[in-house]
Amino acid sequence: MEILIDIEAKERKSYKIYIEDLKKLNFSNKVAIITNPTVAKFHLQRAIDAIDAPQIEIIEVPDGEEYKNIDTVLTILDKLFQAKFDRKSTLIALGGGVIGDMTGFTASMYQRGIDFIQMPTTLLSQVDASVGGKTGVNNQYGKNLIGAFYQPKGVYIDPAFLDTLPPREFAAGIAEVIKMAVMFDFDFYNFLKDANFNSKDDVISIIAKSVKLKADVVNKDEKESGIRAVLNYGHTFGHVVENLTNYSKYLHGEAVAIGMVMANELAVSLGLLSKEEAEDIKELLKKSNLPTTFKIDNIEDFYEHFYLDKKSSNGSIAFILPNGKIGSNIIKRDIPKNLVIEALQNFRNN
Amino acid sequence: MEILIDIEAKERKSYKIYIEDLKKLNFSNKVAIITNPTVAKFHLQRAIDAIDAPQIEIIEVPDGEEYKNIDTVLTILDKLFQAKFDRKSTLIALGGGVIGDMTGFTASMYQRGIDFIQMPTTLLSQVDASVGGKTGVNNQYGKNLIGAFYQPKGVYIDPAFLDTLPPREFAAGIAEVIKMAVMFDFDFYNFLKDANFNSKDDVISIIAKSVKLKADVVNKDEKESGIRAVLNYGHTFGHVVENLTNYSKYLHGEAVAIGMVMANELAVSLGLLSKEEAEDIKELLKKSNLPTTFKIDNIEDFYEHFYLDKKSSNGSIAFILPNGKIGSNIIKRDIPKNLVIEALQNFRNN
Repeated sequence: MEILIDIEAKERKSYKIYIEDLKKLNFSNKVAIITNPTVAKFHLQRAIDAIDAPQIEIIEVPDGEEYKNIDTVLTILDKLFQAKFDRKSTLIALGGGVIGDMTGFTASMYQRGIDFIQMPTTLLSQVDASVGGKTGVNNQYGKNLIGAFYQPKGVYIDPAFLDTLPPREFAAGIAEVIKMAVMFDFDFYNFLKDANFNSKDDVISIIAKSVKLKADVVNKDEKESGIRAVLNYGHTFGHVVENLTNYSKYLHGEAVAIGMVMANELAVSLGLLSKEEAEDIKELLKKSNLPTTFKIDNIEDFYEHFYLDKKSSNGSIAFILPNGKIGSNIIKRDIPKNLVIEALQNFRNN
Repeated sequence: MEILIDIEAKERKSYKIYIEDLKKLNFSNKVAIITNPTVAKFHLQRAIDAIDAPQIEIIEVPDGEEYKNIDTVLTILDKLFQAKFDRKSTLIALGGGVIGDMTGFTASMYQRGIDFIQMPTTLLSQVDASVGGKTGVNNQYGKNLIGAFYQPKGVYIDPAFLDTLPPREFAAGIAEVIKMAVMFDFDFYNFLKDANFNSKDDVISIIAKSVKLKADVVNKDEKESGIRAVLNYGHTFGHVVENLTNYSKYLHGEAVAIGMVMANELAVSLGLLSKEEAEDIKELLKKSNLPTTFKIDNIEDFYEHFYLDKKSSNGSIAFILPNGKIGSNIIKRDIPKNLVIEALQNFRNN
């Protein structure tokens, strides 16, 4: 006997992203702010002042990617149980991507799922991590290997959070912005070339456009089977750069900037991008205080590192490239090894 | 600035439940069977014989509810990483509800979600746990407090699995079946009164009907905000019985049977059920080798225990009762304490 169970599609999941000074948020149940000491020092009071709730717990976790693991999540869970949080309670992620990823994952598990809100405090998390519903932690086998797809209830992006952001971290966020522009929107790319990163209005426009572009992609493909992979432009190469430098020399966005320059070399050699366009992108990255060079010691070894990446299951590597012009994209699989090696040689020689 | 992000509803989640002798299952990627030594002894070979996959890992976890915790889940995750499982791999839960809950939760987290299949080997898990998408583990604060809503890819119920099931566990499964009948379907209730539990045909009919009833409920309310609470008929009282006996004297289904008799006393005193109907249900439970009596040492203390239950957040307790006749239901909140006490006294005196 065969019984077909149709689980109805879940309710449409809508949430709003606010890009403005933090406004009053009202909760009828308990709230926990998950943050780290670095962020708390600058922004915790501002967040607390905005929250009206019967009880606010502050849960601080150590600052750093090395604490983005299941142990930290279990510690947060334990504190929530101790504070008798229930299914109507809410978690607020106050911090960068690490805090957001762990808070979302914790919320997805607590009593099989409670509300959570993102208050991203870095440019990178504002334009990238705040949209898409990816949550999770790292383990000894790699990054983000344990996690869940889980949407926030809302995202509150206060541009004032950026006032205390170190310039290098700001630039790392811009790398992901440039990635979005090169892949999806030539007009936005041109806007970035003329933008003043010290202008609050320009920064708000940049955040808003990036968020909208990412939301479009995520809506088309929540589970990363298709177009969402395009968000990995610069990442295939960038991950290797990060790995070869033990995740210590470059911020993620900086490695992605280098990765985009490498990907563009491959695109040029495949006739998908002109040399002038590749150079133009590199100039924009430089203007944004991002690195565009990297000393490859051993090209063969660099190539082998693609296969350590979890995204290259079943042996085929997906290269994400501009497709004929800036503002367009293509996913290329099964590019012959010699072409990739050649692109890396060109990168080294440029 | 305010940006509305509409995350599109996910694809409709359909899956099939097969109630028949295990047939050939083909996988193009790695498969792990999660089971325990008790189940493996009787059924592992049968499962392996049915599976055609490039690689089959066997992951045995200790048998027992006391091992349904995050440590066991982390152990399973670690073995999957060691075996280099990827996003296209599949987990198979071969066992009862504990195995199913942990396997589903593990699958929900591994690389943010991979496929899993249920092969429930107990009557309880076949009629109950295999539908609904609830996964999770216990911790020191209570049962199922960490978990996820995550649907299986398919459910394969082989009636032959029941051949080795101890009679007490079979009866415990029947308790949940009777619960479904009393709440939702008078015809099914009458069928149960006449059914022969030694007849394979009757058992298949019972499983099929229970699964269909539960699927209807789950479809109406995936997140337990409304009608799904009706599935807790007998559980509000039953949880207290389990708690007072340290979860050791009674199987869950046995405690639910006692809980249904208690709930029926309350229904009778509220005029929602006749004494004859309550007696009729009790007879069916007895015929099914389920307990219907329980020595309440201290009624006041018993009442206080309702408030230890996580489902009674915010102080109001939901009692699930028949609503005027067998095959119907009502959720009653804010029943005065004295009426509940009186019902417990009546239960004790009967």
